[in-house]
Amino acid sequence: MKTKVCEMLQIELPIFAFSHCRDVVAEVTRAGGMGVLGISGYSPEQLEQELHWIDEHTDGKPYGVDILIPNKYEASAKRSNGRPTLPEENQRFLRKLCDDAGIPPLPAGEGDRMFDEFLERLHMTPEAAEELFEVVLRHPNVKLLVNALGTPPKHKVDELHAKGIKVGSLVGRLDHVAAQIEAGVDVLVAQGCEAGGHTGTITSMVLWPQVVDAAGDIPVLAAGGIGRGRQMAAALALGADGIWCGSIWLGTDKSDLTPEMKQRLFNAKSEEAVQSRALTGKPCRMLKSKLSDAFEQPGAPKPLQMPLQTISTFEARTRIERARASDYMSYPVGQIVGDMNGETTVKEIVYGLLNEFLDATERLHQLVHAEDHA
Amino acid sequence: MKTKVCEMLQIELPIFAFSHCRDVVAEVTRAGGMGVLGISGYSPEQLEQELHWIDEHTDGKPYGVDILIPNKYEASAKRSNGRPTLPEENQRFLRKLCDDAGIPPLPAGEGDRMFDEFLERLHMTPEAAEELFEVVLRHPNVKLLVNALGTPPKHKVDELHAKGIKVGSLVGRLDHVAAQIEAGVDVLVAQGCEAGGHTGTITSMVLWPQVVDAAGDIPVLAAGGIGRGRQMAAALALGADGIWCGSIWLGTDKSDLTPEMKQRLFNAKSEEAVQSRALTGKPCRMLKSKLSDAFEQPGAPKPLQMPLQTISTFEARTRIERARASDYMSYPVGQIVGDMNGETTVKEIVYGLLNEFLDATERLHQLVHAEDHA
Repeated sequence: MKTKVCEMLQIELPIFAFSHCRDVVAEVTRAGGMGVLGISGYSPEQLEQELHWIDEHTDGKPYGVDILIPNKYEASAKRSNGRPTLPEENQRFLRKLCDDAGIPPLPAGEGDRMFDEFLERLHMTPEAAEELFEVVLRHPNVKLLVNALGTPPKHKVDELHAKGIKVGSLVGRLDHVAAQIEAGVDVLVAQGCEAGGHTGTITSMVLWPQVVDAAGDIPVLAAGGIGRGRQMAAALALGADGIWCGSIWLGTDKSDLTPEMKQRLFNAKSEEAVQSRALTGKPCRMLKSKLSDAFEQPGAPKPLQMPLQTISTFEARTRIERARASDYMSYPVGQIVGDMNGETTVKEIVYGLLNEFLDATERLHQLVHAEDHA
Repeated sequence: MKTKVCEMLQIELPIFAFSHCRDVVAEVTRAGGMGVLGISGYSPEQLEQELHWIDEHTDGKPYGVDILIPNKYEASAKRSNGRPTLPEENQRFLRKLCDDAGIPPLPAGEGDRMFDEFLERLHMTPEAAEELFEVVLRHPNVKLLVNALGTPPKHKVDELHAKGIKVGSLVGRLDHVAAQIEAGVDVLVAQGCEAGGHTGTITSMVLWPQVVDAAGDIPVLAAGGIGRGRQMAAALALGADGIWCGSIWLGTDKSDLTPEMKQRLFNAKSEEAVQSRALTGKPCRMLKSKLSDAFEQPGAPKPLQMPLQTISTFEARTRIERARASDYMSYPVGQIVGDMNGETTVKEIVYGLLNEFLDATERLHQLVHAEDHA
């Protein structure tokens, strides 16, 4: 079942697993797909450890990394300026939200230390991304680098190509395709608005074939709304060359979510995965929570631009996590959360995808050829 | 290529065409699919004429009708109360919008007459629907009645069954399925949020398999985001028994849209098909216009509840139409509008759907069996 992207990346199955957990990345890679580690948020030292661990657990198989470099970046948030200035209205709003819910403040002194550490890890400037790139280039089994927001600069693509690394890019609307082709990307990830994380407004059913047709020879991975084999069959029927899944791994035994958050995902319906600017400032699909709801109320402050919103909500999010106030916790997840009802293993998911894909393909074939056999 | 729903309704192709144009309904029906006429908005006399015309142009083949009866209905809008009271703020806002755009008012006296005629045609109460049902029952080739909003009452389903008419219902979320099964419907139309018209928030990719699994033996038609054969293949791969298309017929030579509106659809991108309450008061996906934009502005009045919003905007919509102020015209259409680039015929669409469906199915089969032949 090899597609063009399988040949390009020398993998067995056209299944790509985006995850922040190295265990998920390694397990999907070992199963013949390609794990892709989300590396934003790591320090260079932590990233070195993670990639080293993955190298040791994937028998020399190729894997990928995903980095988030926003096109539009609030200059005031650059680390070199030290602590960014945050609007007092937003900070007061978030503090009141926690206070009213009885969520304790952070211990005196500790809040400042945690905040500084957090800022240190927030690698979202081109300079910070450069440090992560250097770590990545030391790991020759990394064969795919995906940029999650915007178009990578041509010189960066050339540099990666020279090292034997293919470059992928996420696109959420047809208009974005031409610039990516121009920049020389090797793989497009067409992500429908049902996906978890930062998304646009066009659904997978409409977006995927549009991107496939515009991409010409460039293989397209289908993202958004895929958690089972029938959806994989739909993606390939629509012309995609492979699938890109993120949310589905959150409910596995290898996921590093807390048991409370996993349980909330298992209880959630699809309509509870809402698009909100509450976490990052950009529309991001996430599990609805009292925190995301608060930003929808009349009189709530407007979420700040990326990455200021992430910085602005750090204190409240940390208070919520420490208090295990699970009703207030949001986590990026797609609409397939409605189909996640209990813990599974990564292997069960991979083999489930394949089996249901084969069944669906066979069923379609039978439907068309039923009269031949009648 | 017959599916269960084809057997149930004695049709050749699992392609359902929702349209307000009798010509589209007749042509799809003649081609072996099933045309479904949207009958809300007709007077009983007009409906009699339309169904008579369809009967005469479909060689005795079965066809369907679709009626819109909201579950939640503003009692103040009932015709028996005469003219409903509309909030002055909304009327002033709409009048100013037109005045500022230089769109002339309706000629003195004529506005009132047109408004009364419009109210007369607004068959959205159970009483008004009853008059339409009576007309429908006089046309024995009507074999499917679909209710677009909410659950039909059990006694109505029984009455229709007794006359040999199958009953269908639109669902936009998994939660809606159980009540429909309870009410005894024969067919579910699972409509993703990319569809034109009234929709929910769940996309087709996620919704269809959820509804299919919950529906058990009841066949599910896939709606929302289908304009080409690859999408039809995806729908059937996801477990649907057939497809339900609406938007795609708007760009055909049989569509009764004005040439200006057709051109606007051909020029539009998918992201211009927005969800708005501007036309009916319920979230309805439509071509973005200066009218729908106006309701998104800060300080705009809140759209009224159905059907008061339709009534409230009547005067402005009529002024806009008479002035052919096409920038201000919205029309319900789904995200596939981005793929509609020029006028086609109904036949081209039906055969295009089938051909691309067969190609996609064959491609999937080859992909799985490539190694068998290697």
